[in-house]
Amino acid sequence: MKAVVHVFLKPGVLDVQGKAVQTALHGLGWDDVDHVRVGRVIEFDIVGDDSAAARTRVEAMCDRLLANPVIEGYRVEIAA
Amino acid sequence: MKAVVHVFLKPGVLDVQGKAVQTALHGLGWDDVDHVRVGRVIEFDIVGDDSAAARTRVEAMCDRLLANPVIEGYRVEIAA
Repeated sequence: MKAVVHVFLKPGVLDVQGKAVQTALHGLGWDDVDHVRVGRVIEFDIVGDDSAAARTRVEAMCDRLLANPVIEGYRVEIAA
Repeated sequence: MKAVVHVFLKPGVLDVQGKAVQTALHGLGWDDVDHVRVGRVIEFDIVGDDSAAARTRVEAMCDRLLANPVIEGYRVEIAA
């Protein structure tokens, strides 16, 4: 199965990378760009047929390694 | 409108960050995880009603700033 994990800073946490991208886009003339947020996507294959069980395992991976639960949230997608 | 840009290393380009994540997951006991790829997501708001025009503009942003076209590919999603 294929797992896709989106990791984003929680709302309210200053996204310095997003701010830098926004400033650069404005500097290139795209002035109307706003609310830029930069996150990570982690894609991988896992063995198993049960998507609910796979989701539980991937959430454990997020809590232990893939995301920083203090400042980041995540969203897990499981595809066959 | 809301734009979401996914940026990934092209197939065949060594993803050192993905390799590091994979090694760490194996070390934590998730041995069956394979083919880990780490990418970026950039989300932002843009002004306008025409989604085709918005897509063209966002693709120009990718080519000029958001992605490195030598080693990275990107996918653009535009939502109302």
